[in-house]
Amino acid sequence: MFLLKLSIILIAAEFGGYVCRKLKQPTVLGQLIMGILIGPSLLGLVEPTETFAHLSELGVILLMFIAGLETDLNEMIESGKSSTLIALGGVAIPILLGVGASLLFGRTPIEGFFIGVILSATSVSITVETLREIDKLKTKQGITILGAAVIDDVIGIVLLSLVTGFIKPSATQGFLIVCVKIVAFFILAIVAGIVIIRLSKKLFGSKIISARVAIVGLVFCLLMSFVSEELGVAAITGAYVAGIILSATPFRNKVSQRTQELSYLLLTPIFFVVTGMKVDVTHLLDDWLFGVVLLVVAVIGKLLGCGVTARLSGFDKKESMQIGIGMIPRGEVALIVTDIGLRLNVVPSGVFAAIIFMILATTVVTPPILKNSFS
Amino acid sequence: MFLLKLSIILIAAEFGGYVCRKLKQPTVLGQLIMGILIGPSLLGLVEPTETFAHLSELGVILLMFIAGLETDLNEMIESGKSSTLIALGGVAIPILLGVGASLLFGRTPIEGFFIGVILSATSVSITVETLREIDKLKTKQGITILGAAVIDDVIGIVLLSLVTGFIKPSATQGFLIVCVKIVAFFILAIVAGIVIIRLSKKLFGSKIISARVAIVGLVFCLLMSFVSEELGVAAITGAYVAGIILSATPFRNKVSQRTQELSYLLLTPIFFVVTGMKVDVTHLLDDWLFGVVLLVVAVIGKLLGCGVTARLSGFDKKESMQIGIGMIPRGEVALIVTDIGLRLNVVPSGVFAAIIFMILATTVVTPPILKNSFS
Repeated sequence: MFLLKLSIILIAAEFGGYVCRKLKQPTVLGQLIMGILIGPSLLGLVEPTETFAHLSELGVILLMFIAGLETDLNEMIESGKSSTLIALGGVAIPILLGVGASLLFGRTPIEGFFIGVILSATSVSITVETLREIDKLKTKQGITILGAAVIDDVIGIVLLSLVTGFIKPSATQGFLIVCVKIVAFFILAIVAGIVIIRLSKKLFGSKIISARVAIVGLVFCLLMSFVSEELGVAAITGAYVAGIILSATPFRNKVSQRTQELSYLLLTPIFFVVTGMKVDVTHLLDDWLFGVVLLVVAVIGKLLGCGVTARLSGFDKKESMQIGIGMIPRGEVALIVTDIGLRLNVVPSGVFAAIIFMILATTVVTPPILKNSFS
Repeated sequence: MFLLKLSIILIAAEFGGYVCRKLKQPTVLGQLIMGILIGPSLLGLVEPTETFAHLSELGVILLMFIAGLETDLNEMIESGKSSTLIALGGVAIPILLGVGASLLFGRTPIEGFFIGVILSATSVSITVETLREIDKLKTKQGITILGAAVIDDVIGIVLLSLVTGFIKPSATQGFLIVCVKIVAFFILAIVAGIVIIRLSKKLFGSKIISARVAIVGLVFCLLMSFVSEELGVAAITGAYVAGIILSATPFRNKVSQRTQELSYLLLTPIFFVVTGMKVDVTHLLDDWLFGVVLLVVAVIGKLLGCGVTARLSGFDKKESMQIGIGMIPRGEVALIVTDIGLRLNVVPSGVFAAIIFMILATTVVTPPILKNSFS
């Protein structure tokens, strides 16, 4: 049945994408919606089995790897300061608003802070795919969004370790260990980057690059993703960093071309459809009022937090808006934090539905708004 | 851990392939051997999980799909008569020799006939990959081997249903049902083929083909594989037929180019390494004498059965030899038949080790001999 289910996923992705292109909407949107439609909670045609979960993981990793490959390392470094500022704004404001909204709904301060942390982490894959589709990934805004998303991911992890350490010191890794691991990852990445970039330029700078280098590049991406996950940083961050490193080597074009075929023909569509499939719509509106409030907080939090800091960093009004919109989607990271919160009893199980609603809504709402903001 | 295990498989494939290229041996050989090495029975670094089994299935399906895409439909039809003859010879002689060898080793005639059936089905993926590597897949010999392998697969299924029906009428599908299903598959394939080829030429004959057609082609391949499997024909036969159909449409080049990237970068290496991984070397020599006899019978059976019929069909001596060698590998089909035999108690469990030895040896031995025969 695997072959049939895979066919259904690919047909759904292609059909959803086709309809959305006709409606001048981003392909991702159609793939997400088709995923929800064919998933277990509606039509039940396909369920996210182990294989599809792995293929989907591979899909998002390659998506971020390619985004990294298409990044200009120098531009990335240049935009480092504004990315950091934007990330900080995009963490602070959602947390403040999250705490406020939670207190209004009768939650304790600690619950509110946890919900704030959930609201703080951007899930950049939706934005990446939307920008790539309209060929705006390499704009200054695109690069800044990617940088900021990586940084706010890291801030999210640190905050998570802080809160959980505060609630249940025994259940979680110490704050210090988490920080050491993150620092270790970035030191490793920088050292690996310098060595690989220098060596490759020296050894292969003037040679014709064999197409086989794509496999080596792919393996490097997988290993970096694995290491980053082991060190507590998200796998997609590792993949993105791997892409950035290779973007400064002579292998860039060969690796990029060949992994793109792999990614866009098979794995990226699977990722977005499977992401849709995981949504359980039956309980989506169990706490719709709080869900809507969270959605508003999520949207305003990033628009304000990232938009204003972008404006302060020298972007014009329109660009700042685009950056704010690009940072809206929440996804895996929010889910992971929620899951930890449930186990620590800081996130009441009723709130779960509201959070899922918020994640789904930010995911579905961003692609069309983002595309529109660029036209 | 999925990312790490996948990295290990890809590194093993690349390393094994690299060493074999240096030794002027086919890449597949290195990938198979590395698979055995890292698999559960030796180093135990990776085991064939559900995901890897599925990826590997996808790999062999794409391999056959691409082989189909690269086939010239007219040449295929032209070589139909000699392919059929060669297939018949390649089934008859191994069965005769198999019965003889089994009787010599004290087996009953029915056991002997079952072992003969096991020896009759060619597993053509190894040959396809080896020929592709030395760019001989499109030669007359290459096309004839592929045609003959498809036909001997079908004969194998019919024979299997005959023997099992004879041994245990209740346990298996009737002979008639099996035949009806096979006929149904080929009627479906011919009708689908005629409709798709005519329509595509009429509608797209003069238009620029979008790269998106690759996804449609891929889905068509998956669906044909699924249907063929459901109708009792091997999935790879369905994939091959899907490829042949699309090879006569204007989509051929776009589909072929893009699926090749997908296949050779990720899925084909996984297929060969995972195939190696499944070999349990610990019991390989439990019945080594019978194993060696089976190997000799397997090799001579195809060399004689296919080589002589090829010579009779007008191939010269060297070409006939190449066809005979190309038909030597046994694989999945032999394993499936063996499995059924074990459950029906016609294949004594001691013989299992000997059969695995035979399959492994034909698989490992063919690539270098085949490559050599072309130089």
